[in-house]
Parts: sequence; C-alpha cells; structure tokens
Amino acid sequence: MTLRVGVIGAGQLARMMTPAAVELDIDLRVFAEAAGASASLVTTVVGDHVDAEQVLAFARDVDVITFDHEHVPQTVLARLEADGVAVRPGPAALRHAQDKLVMRRRVAELGLGQPDWAAASDAAGVAAFLAAHGGRAIVKTPRGGYDGHGVRLVTAADQVADWLADDVLAAVGGELLLEEAVDFRRELSQQIARRPSGQTALWPLVASEQVDGVCAEVIAPAPDTTPAVAEQAARIAMTLAERLDVTGVLAVELFETPDGRVLVNELAMRPHNSGHWNVDGTVTGQFEQHLRAVLDLPLGATDPIAPCTVMVNVLGGHDGVEHESDLRAALAAVPEAKVHWYGKTYRPGRKVGHVNVSGDDPAQVRARARQAARLLGSEVVDRLSV
Amino acid sequence: MTLRVGVIGAGQLARMMTPAAVELDIDLRVFAEAAGASASLVTTVVGDHVDAEQVLAFARDVDVITFDHEHVPQTVLARLEADGVAVRPGPAALRHAQDKLVMRRRVAELGLGQPDWAAASDAAGVAAFLAAHGGRAIVKTPRGGYDGHGVRLVTAADQVADWLADDVLAAVGGELLLEEAVDFRRELSQQIARRPSGQTALWPLVASEQVDGVCAEVIAPAPDTTPAVAEQAARIAMTLAERLDVTGVLAVELFETPDGRVLVNELAMRPHNSGHWNVDGTVTGQFEQHLRAVLDLPLGATDPIAPCTVMVNVLGGHDGVEHESDLRAALAAVPEAKVHWYGKTYRPGRKVGHVNVSGDDPAQVRARARQAARLLGSEVVDRLSV
Repeated sequence: MTLRVGVIGAGQLARMMTPAAVELDIDLRVFAEAAGASASLVTTVVGDHVDAEQVLAFARDVDVITFDHEHVPQTVLARLEADGVAVRPGPAALRHAQDKLVMRRRVAELGLGQPDWAAASDAAGVAAFLAAHGGRAIVKTPRGGYDGHGVRLVTAADQVADWLADDVLAAVGGELLLEEAVDFRRELSQQIARRPSGQTALWPLVASEQVDGVCAEVIAPAPDTTPAVAEQAARIAMTLAERLDVTGVLAVELFETPDGRVLVNELAMRPHNSGHWNVDGTVTGQFEQHLRAVLDLPLGATDPIAPCTVMVNVLGGHDGVEHESDLRAALAAVPEAKVHWYGKTYRPGRKVGHVNVSGDDPAQVRARARQAARLLGSEVVDRLSV
Repeated sequence: MTLRVGVIGAGQLARMMTPAAVELDIDLRVFAEAAGASASLVTTVVGDHVDAEQVLAFARDVDVITFDHEHVPQTVLARLEADGVAVRPGPAALRHAQDKLVMRRRVAELGLGQPDWAAASDAAGVAAFLAAHGGRAIVKTPRGGYDGHGVRLVTAADQVADWLADDVLAAVGGELLLEEAVDFRRELSQQIARRPSGQTALWPLVASEQVDGVCAEVIAPAPDTTPAVAEQAARIAMTLAERLDVTGVLAVELFETPDGRVLVNELAMRPHNSGHWNVDGTVTGQFEQHLRAVLDLPLGATDPIAPCTVMVNVLGGHDGVEHESDLRAALAAVPEAKVHWYGKTYRPGRKVGHVNVSGDDPAQVRARARQAARLLGSEVVDRLSV
C-alpha cells in the first residue's frame, strides 16, 4: 500500500515535496486554491481551504494532511480532527504559527529569549510602547502576514491607524503585536523535524539575510557561530518542537544580539525558505524530511555534504524566452549551481526560484550562488550586504 | 516558455527524470506502453512505440524526444526525424545501442579495446568460434536483449539452437553475436553526457557487480583504479560519444582485464543503472544531466560530494504492508540511506528500487548500503561478493 499525503496549498513548498514523494513512492496529493498553481503537477483538487466540507472530502482519501501555508482556519482543522483525519502539524501546534500573539505568550511561558513585546488594540497602547522603547517599534498583525506583509517599523501610532480600524483589527486577531526593534548582529534560522512518535532531527544552524522583509540569502552553517549561540538555538528549537507538539518541519527564525543572546523572531511549521539550502546541502532535505515526519517514518540524517552551502533567492526575473536565455547563462557560468524553479509567472519582487551552491570556501560559494541568481534575473542580489 | 521533453517509455528511468524536471521547471511528458507504469505521474499518452503515427502525434507537442529504453524501431525514429522532430540521441547513434553487432563493428573501426567477437548465423559458425576460444563463448542476440535476457554462456552450439531457428534469428537481427568469455578482473562503467553543441561531461569511473546478468551493486569511484585504466575508460567513452554523435547520457559498460586492459562490453544511450549512484553522489545526477543534454542546455558539474558512494539494487522485495514495514526498518537502521522506489509491483528478481549511501570509508559505506537494501527485502544482497 502506497503511503498517501495530502497537502493543503499548492505553492512552491508543495511543489518541492514532489521529488521526494516520487523517490520514496509516496502518493502526494495537493489541494490547490486555483488551477495552474506552482504544484500543479500533483494537484488533485482545486478548492477553497476555508470550506470545511471541501477540505474534508479531500482528506478522506489520504493517510495524513499537511500544509504548504498556515492559512487553514482552526475551525476547519477542528472539523478534520473530529472526523478522525491525521492533521500534522496538529491544530494546537499550528495556532502558534498562525497567530503571533499566541506564539509570543507561549514563548514567554516557556522562558525562551524573545524581544520585548506587548499587545495593543488602540493608538494609546502603541504610543505607550513606543515611548518605552526609544520611539521605535515593530508592529505586526498577529494573523495573516507573510514575507514582510503585516509587518511595519513605526515611530508613531498613526502609522498603523489603518490596522487599528475596528474591521481590520478584528480580522487580524483583535489586537496588534508590538515588538522592540531589536538591534541584532544577524538573523539566524534553526530548523528541526519531529515525528508524532517523538524522534527529532536538527539541521545545522544557518544565517539568513532579508531584503524588504523577504528572505534573500541563507548561509549554512552560520559563519563564526559561538558554541553558546549554537546551543541556545538548538535548545530553543527542541523546546518549541516538543512543548508545542510540532510534527513535521519547524523553522525558528531567530535574532542573534551583539551580546550573544538568541531571541525568537518567528515560527513556521512547514518547509521554509531558510531550509531550501539543505535539499542540496545535506543528506536529507526539508521536503523529504517533512514527508517522513508527518507520516511518522524514521527521520533521515541531516549531516551537511559540504563545508558550506549558500542559497540565494531569485526574486523577480524574467518570463518566457528571456527566462530560457537567463537559465542558459546561469547554468553555463555556474555549472555547480543547483537551480530550483517554481513555474510561476513574473511579478516584481516575486519569489520565482532559488539557487544552491555548495563548496569549501564560504566567500567563494556565496559569490558563485549570487552570480547564478543574478544571471537568473534576480532583482535583489545587488542589495545584499557584502 | 517552458522547455518540453517527451520520453518514450514509462519505466523507472522516465520516472526518475521527474524530480529534475520539477526543479528545472521542464515540462516532462511520457509516452507509456500501458497505464499504471512506473512513470505514471507524468504519463500523458498511452500507446504503442512501434506505431509511427502514435509516436509522431506525441512528438508534435514537445521540443525534443528522448527515451527510457532502446526499443523504438529505426523506421519510427526515421519518421520522426523526417517530420522535423528533434530526436536525442538520434537514430544513427541509437543503432549502436539497439544492435550489438552494429556496435561491435563500430568499436572495431574506432580501434577501441573489446573482447574477441564474431557473427554467426548457423551452428557451424558457433562451433568454430567455440573451438577457437577454449570451448566457451558468450552468445548474444544482437537486438532486443536487456538485463541478461538474450545473453548466454555456452559450451556447445546446440545450447543456442532455439536462437538459430529461422524466425527467431530474423527477429534478433539475422545473426548472433559471439564473444570471448573474458576473464575479467572486474566490470566497470564509464558514464558521459554530451550535448548537440558538443560539450561533454564525464562522471567518475565506477565498478559494478552483476548477479545473474543484472546490475546489483555499484561502487563509486571504482576502488584501486590505476591512472592508466581510468584514462582508457575516459578515452573510450569520449571517443564513442563524439564519433557516434551521442546526445544525452551514454553509459559504457567495460571489462577490466587482469593485465590492465579496458574492453567495451555494452553501451546504453540513456540514464543507466550504473549511474544511479550519481543522483545522490555527485553535484549533477544522470537524470538532470540527461534532460540538460537533450535540451542542449549547459551541462552541470559532475564532482562527487563524498569520497565514496555505493548503490545497491533492490531486486524482489515485498508489496503492500510488508513493504511499508521494510521501509520503516531500513530508514530507521540506515538514516543516511537515500531510498529510491519505483512504484512497481513485486515479482521475483524484479528491480523495484535502489539505495544510495555516501561516506568516507568504502567498506563501511558498502556495508551500510547493503544493510538498507537487505532490510528493503532485496533478494540479491547475500549473493554479492564480500
């Protein structure tokens, strides 16, 4: 009997589960919002993921339901569980990736490092937090944000007046999340996989760089990392995976402060952009590991296959004949590049693919990965730090 | 515009082109002999590959036609070319992989090493060759053989009387191929990829072990290889790829003799069992490279990612619930194993999957790969040499 996994959402994360599913002979089925999505090859149903009946009908033919995104409402997830569907990660875990205030409260309870934060539902609350934090704060909508959407650096309460309007506030969770604008040395990401039966596997800690709130580059392992920082990152990820009962892959985005503290920034309970490097850079990539984890199969080794791997996103780029010409140029110039393309049409700044390069020398590997991404038309490479 | 590749044949080789096609956003379409084949995920047409009209209709919607096997008749290939279809490898090259006598004659013309050989169309011819070669010979049907089918070690002409019957002889090419039974030290395989524009890329030379004529294990790189042997193997593969105008991936199966000569055994002009190791063991695996080559895209780097990779085939094994239990056991015991499963039902001795393991120590890597294959139910592991 072939194992069957149903994925809600048909973006590039569902798409990139396909190769691993083919190799392990897992029957992968995808519930897409629309025809022609990135994971169209394995799309079996086009429907609305907030419609419990549609999702339930899809779920009845698979062994386990998992996700390409965090947007399936708790009401729908509860219906699935009530109907006996295996949902991984489960609704109780997933809440912490769906609602940033729920996550902040839980991280506080667990005693893990995080930025100063507060909840506010009016301008006075925002103003008070600003006054207590040097006049600057990161304001986030607790629900519905992604890739920099729903995140603003503000210096005055009126900069989030639109979010404080009653209807908008209700839609994003009833309160806004206010966070200290952390003066970080760099951003890190620690990925871990966890099975229902409890086995966990950590990947090496990586450093990531965002541009306009979108992940642009990941360096693995994170260079010049002290043992204390690596230990904190691993402990945070392990604690969250176990205490939140996460199943599947969890990415914990972190800040490293200049004084060596490690603070929780965001959580994602699915394969994540900060883990794309490990598909080519470690024995078991995040898509294969996610499928193994949600099926409660034994996890694969996460050892790196090279001293360094760098992932650079292609944001923007070209369509059609221009893309083919870009691809030829990139493959010719960087024969060691692993190009991953999502089959998405061009829009300015849209994630359309990424490149991995592995090797011995971090500076050279990074230069080669950036060269390939630049040739593929990425609009962001020249805005990365040197 | 997405690049489109059409594959004739829907076995595991077509199936394993899928992951590379997904990552490079190549539109892969497969012409299958029957529904439910190994490459069913990307099957777009079910038809008969000896029917020129059916193949032509399939070919009109792709940029290039390539193959999962060598069984498409020259008459059909000629029709495709006459119709302007890009066929890679082309019919003139493919003849050498379709007919072993055509191959032997060409290898002789090129002055490359090979076993003593002759053609015979009657018992007297077979008897004469036996008498001249110590009473033993390998007899092959020039056409239609695979995995040990159409190959016999004989000591008397009457052991191939069935093949010498008029109708059988006509079906396999009109003559039989007689070859010296080479007293080889070991079997080697040299893979190379070549683009229509001429670029070539060699993978490291590997050693393979056959059981009952079927590839059972591959060790990469071939251990204890002298520079002279490696140089001969590379030169043979390069010469054949260029002089036969091969496009795509070419596997040259070789004998290494005790006195260090390298002799051509067989050719395959497609991804090949002896190259499965390089999917996990090198930067660019054979399926990705084949797609790049037939599309005339720049070839990828073929550097190994570890000092040693071993591939062990799973021949036989189990179906259904027993398979799932085997899979759990193998993944748990060998977390560094890369399991590739073909989605085929069990038959005794049938190739149903393979395992790759990479690492530093060849003896340990081989033991781990064999352990995983054994747990997956392979019927052949215990018959491999120690």
